[in-house]
Amino acid sequence: MQLQLSTWPEVESYLQSSPGIIFPIGSTEQHGPTGLIGTDAICAEAIAKGVGEATGAMVGPTINVGMALHHLAFPGSVSLRPSTLIRVIVDYVSSLAPAGFSRFYFINGHGGNIATLKAAFSEAYHHLGSLGHSQNVRCHLGNWFMARGVYQLAKELYGDQEGHHATPSEVALTQFVYPEAIKTAPLNPEVASGHSIYSAQDFREHYSDGRMGSNPALATPEHGQRFYEVAVKELSESYQRFLAEN
Amino acid sequence: MQLQLSTWPEVESYLQSSPGIIFPIGSTEQHGPTGLIGTDAICAEAIAKGVGEATGAMVGPTINVGMALHHLAFPGSVSLRPSTLIRVIVDYVSSLAPAGFSRFYFINGHGGNIATLKAAFSEAYHHLGSLGHSQNVRCHLGNWFMARGVYQLAKELYGDQEGHHATPSEVALTQFVYPEAIKTAPLNPEVASGHSIYSAQDFREHYSDGRMGSNPALATPEHGQRFYEVAVKELSESYQRFLAEN
Amino acid sequence: MQLQLSTWPEVESYLQSSPGIIFPIGSTEQHGPTGLIGTDAICAEAIAKGVGEATGAMVGPTINVGMALHHLAFPGSVSLRPSTLIRVIVDYVSSLAPAGFSRFYFINGHGGNIATLKAAFSEAYHHLGSLGHSQNVRCHLGNWFMARGVYQLAKELYGDQEGHHATPSEVALTQFVYPEAIKTAPLNPEVASGHSIYSAQDFREHYSDGRMGSNPALATPEHGQRFYEVAVKELSESYQRFLAEN
Amino acid sequence: MQLQLSTWPEVESYLQSSPGIIFPIGSTEQHGPTGLIGTDAICAEAIAKGVGEATGAMVGPTINVGMALHHLAFPGSVSLRPSTLIRVIVDYVSSLAPAGFSRFYFINGHGGNIATLKAAFSEAYHHLGSLGHSQNVRCHLGNWFMARGVYQLAKELYGDQEGHHATPSEVALTQFVYPEAIKTAPLNPEVASGHSIYSAQDFREHYSDGRMGSNPALATPEHGQRFYEVAVKELSESYQRFLAEN
Amino acid sequence: MQLQLSTWPEVESYLQSSPGIIFPIGSTEQHGPTGLIGTDAICAEAIAKGVGEATGAMVGPTINVGMALHHLAFPGSVSLRPSTLIRVIVDYVSSLAPAGFSRFYFINGHGGNIATLKAAFSEAYHHLGSLGHSQNVRCHLGNWFMARGVYQLAKELYGDQEGHHATPSEVALTQFVYPEAIKTAPLNPEVASGHSIYSAQDFREHYSDGRMGSNPALATPEHGQRFYEVAVKELSESYQRFLAEN
Amino acid sequence: MQLQLSTWPEVESYLQSSPGIIFPIGSTEQHGPTGLIGTDAICAEAIAKGVGEATGAMVGPTINVGMALHHLAFPGSVSLRPSTLIRVIVDYVSSLAPAGFSRFYFINGHGGNIATLKAAFSEAYHHLGSLGHSQNVRCHLGNWFMARGVYQLAKELYGDQEGHHATPSEVALTQFVYPEAIKTAPLNPEVASGHSIYSAQDFREHYSDGRMGSNPALATPEHGQRFYEVAVKELSESYQRFLAEN
Ligand code: NI
Ligand code: NI
Ligand code: NI
Ligand code: NI
Ligand code: NI
Ligand code: NI
Repeated sequence: MQLQLSTWPEVESYLQSSPGIIFPIGSTEQHGPTGLIGTDAICAEAIAKGVGEATGAMVGPTINVGMALHHLAFPGSVSLRPSTLIRVIVDYVSSLAPAGFSRFYFINGHGGNIATLKAAFSEAYHHLGSLGHSQNVRCHLGNWFMARGVYQLAKELYGDQEGHHATPSEVALTQFVYPEAIKTAPLNPEVASGHSIYSAQDFREHYSDGRMGSNPALATPEHGQRFYEVAVKELSESYQRFLAEN
Repeated sequence: MQLQLSTWPEVESYLQSSPGIIFPIGSTEQHGPTGLIGTDAICAEAIAKGVGEATGAMVGPTINVGMALHHLAFPGSVSLRPSTLIRVIVDYVSSLAPAGFSRFYFINGHGGNIATLKAAFSEAYHHLGSLGHSQNVRCHLGNWFMARGVYQLAKELYGDQEGHHATPSEVALTQFVYPEAIKTAPLNPEVASGHSIYSAQDFREHYSDGRMGSNPALATPEHGQRFYEVAVKELSESYQRFLAEN
Repeated sequence: MQLQLSTWPEVESYLQSSPGIIFPIGSTEQHGPTGLIGTDAICAEAIAKGVGEATGAMVGPTINVGMALHHLAFPGSVSLRPSTLIRVIVDYVSSLAPAGFSRFYFINGHGGNIATLKAAFSEAYHHLGSLGHSQNVRCHLGNWFMARGVYQLAKELYGDQEGHHATPSEVALTQFVYPEAIKTAPLNPEVASGHSIYSAQDFREHYSDGRMGSNPALATPEHGQRFYEVAVKELSESYQRFLAEN
Repeated sequence: MQLQLSTWPEVESYLQSSPGIIFPIGSTEQHGPTGLIGTDAICAEAIAKGVGEATGAMVGPTINVGMALHHLAFPGSVSLRPSTLIRVIVDYVSSLAPAGFSRFYFINGHGGNIATLKAAFSEAYHHLGSLGHSQNVRCHLGNWFMARGVYQLAKELYGDQEGHHATPSEVALTQFVYPEAIKTAPLNPEVASGHSIYSAQDFREHYSDGRMGSNPALATPEHGQRFYEVAVKELSESYQRFLAEN
Repeated sequence: MQLQLSTWPEVESYLQSSPGIIFPIGSTEQHGPTGLIGTDAICAEAIAKGVGEATGAMVGPTINVGMALHHLAFPGSVSLRPSTLIRVIVDYVSSLAPAGFSRFYFINGHGGNIATLKAAFSEAYHHLGSLGHSQNVRCHLGNWFMARGVYQLAKELYGDQEGHHATPSEVALTQFVYPEAIKTAPLNPEVASGHSIYSAQDFREHYSDGRMGSNPALATPEHGQRFYEVAVKELSESYQRFLAEN
Repeated sequence: MQLQLSTWPEVESYLQSSPGIIFPIGSTEQHGPTGLIGTDAICAEAIAKGVGEATGAMVGPTINVGMALHHLAFPGSVSLRPSTLIRVIVDYVSSLAPAGFSRFYFINGHGGNIATLKAAFSEAYHHLGSLGHSQNVRCHLGNWFMARGVYQLAKELYGDQEGHHATPSEVALTQFVYPEAIKTAPLNPEVASGHSIYSAQDFREHYSDGRMGSNPALATPEHGQRFYEVAVKELSESYQRFLAEN
């Protein structure tokens, strides 16, 4: 059930049976010479819709821009500052909690969002609590790319060439979702790897084409479908466990 | 050309020929008993993609949540505070300006966003200027529902029953885009109208089902297509004039 | 009744009969070669005092500096950032609401304030609501220069030479209020017009002497008196309608 | 020379001979049963204009609302939060510094503003410095009520009955400026004194009519004139020393 | 070399040979019935001083209060909001970077700080970069309790009774540093475990005495010394690798 | 009783008998050629612990970094912006107030903190009040270097050579606390004095070695002990008066 395709009376009905909502969150950032700038948002959105179908959960609109400051030296990347993203999450949760939503499950497609989202969850609980709201609200972070089955499949299909950014697994998933947007470009077989992430300029100096140790040329739409199915299955179970927590 | 479906080298190429980018911005808010909560985002996104196709412009990902604080007493509505949305816009513009984007065209689907967006544009120019960036950046607000042809068509099709929120014109457009999500519900023929907008609670007290003087039952997908075509045509011309300004 | 010239017991008494207060808000910004930097604040303050006398309303102290970032390339201009002005308005409303003021009527002399003020009103309602205050507070924006009678009089007296900034109407009103401060300077009959407002530097490049299509040389103190009287009459009626709204 | 009554070319000329500007800053807060709510702003504005006449300094518009959170339990009081006032001052200084103003002299009428203004000056220097502006900007705080001659005159005229808030000296000065607004009310001869200032509620509990150890019934307009003259003389000298500092 | 015990000329000399500085960061939060509220700060500080001695690094003053919002339902806990802690870190880094410090190594004693610190590092790089500073600044997070040797030793000494908060390992380390402050109290052998962390109230409901699956009664000062030695050794190596990164 | 060396049940017990807590606050800033960068924090912490022992008060962890923006042109100085420090103080007070702490006594070692701390106290009262907390919270600022006995002793020992920054009195106190860190360096007998404090760059230009009119070579550890004893005695009395205030 998609929030954007529902009416408010339908949401009111939904809340009779569930306090849960899923928000896909991605990023808008370079993904190497062949990866789509929207990769993280595309993956998160597709999987979130799949989880919504599998579980009957309400799925909110995608947060398309996340925390990608370190990618800003590549054209087309867009980022919120962490302090901005924290406010955004606080506003989302504060908007929906008074209506009865109390279980917020974020399906995340971008490693760079993790720290800020965790910080934002803490800030949101505290914000609501200080305003005298029930402290019953809970947020959960579901990173599809860290799901056990996804990890195993990536290992099996790509081994070390999975890398850490612009990975074949995420590229494969976007190929499955948008087969019309499969890109090709020459990829230097020697790809930078192992350097920590600091400033945007530093990132570009060390990762000259944007990839981090990955070989996205290995991706296929068929792989993408497998990643999609594994991720939907695992995150659906995770969402249901989250709702069932005491 | 969609930013989310492009690679960073493609963006780099695009910037050789154009400094322009279009961002659809909507809202996630109640639209009466039959209107979709995502109406404003759906309309803005569809039209923005149409304008992108017509003009070759780069189209960024949709900003799905806007300034809808006055709708928060209806379940399912989500809003940023104006001060948050200002930060978000400043972050978007500041991310892309160093790469060479200098013409930001926001296709807006929600009247409630207008004031905050205008304030945000001022804050963004000043922010960039104070940091010593070129003061060459320009933002433009294109409200599809205020385009002359859209207004005339709504007048012609619906007269006074167009109303001011959850209007048949915007509902029609969503029916065109998502025919599978057309909703029906009994609509009281006596619909509230003419009350100013204050707090969320005050809004709900005066507009009990969420509509403001509108009769969305008049909407049809065919109308929606006509609105779409008129809006794409007018905003495409507006975008090109914006790029051509001296 | 002026707040600044009242005692707190007088305010306490006033609140027995009315929850309304008027705040004049202007700007401190260039107004062309002959217009006073304080034009917008002077006009708003004079009219607000007139409305206060006509209606018995409490009139607060003038907010002398508003949102004028686009004028900052001319010396003497002062501006708050929109995000600052929002905080200021939230603080004003939050200070007075607990005492019983619930109808805030801002008499505004500056077009550049409009967007930020509207955004600020939304933020203020939400702020009070989230703190558990009654959501009964209402703010209204009364732009004197957009009053119907003012507009018609300007059209009648100046036609197209009214322009959009440093207008003869506002200059006339300052001449009526401060006849000792009437300025003269050569005015180029070819005055820039029609360019949108972006950054401060862009503004100055396009509007080299600060005027926007106006001929303030047409202004006279007698005109100013007529504008004053029309504006006071119309805004007094508007204020009373605001108080009477259900 | 008043900024509000000047044109931008006049400001440009002024800057050829002086980098100095004076801002009166007051407060909008209860001043006991007979003191005007605008007392602090009225005094600061009158003295600032006097100093401007005596020294030829540019005088900016009055900052009418300051930091008066502890007075908010009395109706009619308005306050900025310290964090808001800091932003306001940073915005004022940042607006004018690029034009060439580098000596900001604040004539202050309210003890409660002192701490926040000093903090704001530090924040403003740092803000400008971090943006790469010249670090030549200086701010000075001139508290008229702490001028030596003012203090001595108050001691001489009122002794211990000067008190610390709603003092006869400041009331006298407002009587001199606004003789038409002299208020009378029964004043309890036993007036609270000596309690530290904490929250607004705590303040009202300890200072039930708003006065802090003062007997404003001693004030006369003639006294007010003497305070005015002493303050203008001392602050004029102080302003000139400030400009002359190496 | 401790910053607090150095003079500025000594710092100037130090910068000739190294751009590195270590900041211990802890937390001020409940650590169960027997753990010290300052546990995380005490551990971080002791280890940081040890690393400073081993490597000759400059060690800054301890950040005693971190992100511990979820512990606030236990008396004595103090926390910064994540958005505050981000500002604090940005201020630290921005203060020292212009002087020549460019390698900031945070020795962290509290898992709850990790997300916010990572977000803060990103915000700091971006802040400095947007101000035109060199983007050469790097921050590193060294969590002593996650060092491999520490982890192994805890496993070896305590097995599953190490738990996740108020652990015997951290308690042991405080016993080594402050043997005079060893506390005893009855500890329920059935200790809560496995519940995710949400709001402060939720935390206390699930972890009634503050421990998370741990048995701090196993701790001894001798263990503490072993943890100290292992942590100093590993983090010293980590610090030196950090400085040596290209 | 030190908060960092207590358990939460001990804090719970403490609150049965006292609502008071002491926070030492210092600064991390240059103190001339021989003064320790941590001087202000070291002094505040030592005295706070002494007051804690003398009065049985709970003593929180030291706030090591304060408002020292004007010292940032000397290497090793670290500062929070005033707006950051305000947030920090608000967070401290808001963390502890719900647990029952209502008397916050800050023992301050740095003149530059005073203004911001006072502003922060106002902001904290208002913050708590607006959230509906009891307005019973009180903060007090105890500046050890302004205690009467300290002032007299410094006058007696050093006369005019006490100066205003990097003073022999504070240096002496650090020598008493850290005799192993006594520094010597040639001190120019002609030391700058009398210049107001503006930006960091301006400060360094006028105070080339960081001292403000002081001769820290006069300091001895024995003096330091005397300052310590006087300060502990006076501030202990002050703390107890603060707790006893009605
Ligand atoms: Ni990705
Ligand atoms: Ni709509
Ligand atoms: Ni104007
Ligand atoms: Ni006063
Ligand atoms: Ni711990
Ligand atoms: Ni000091």
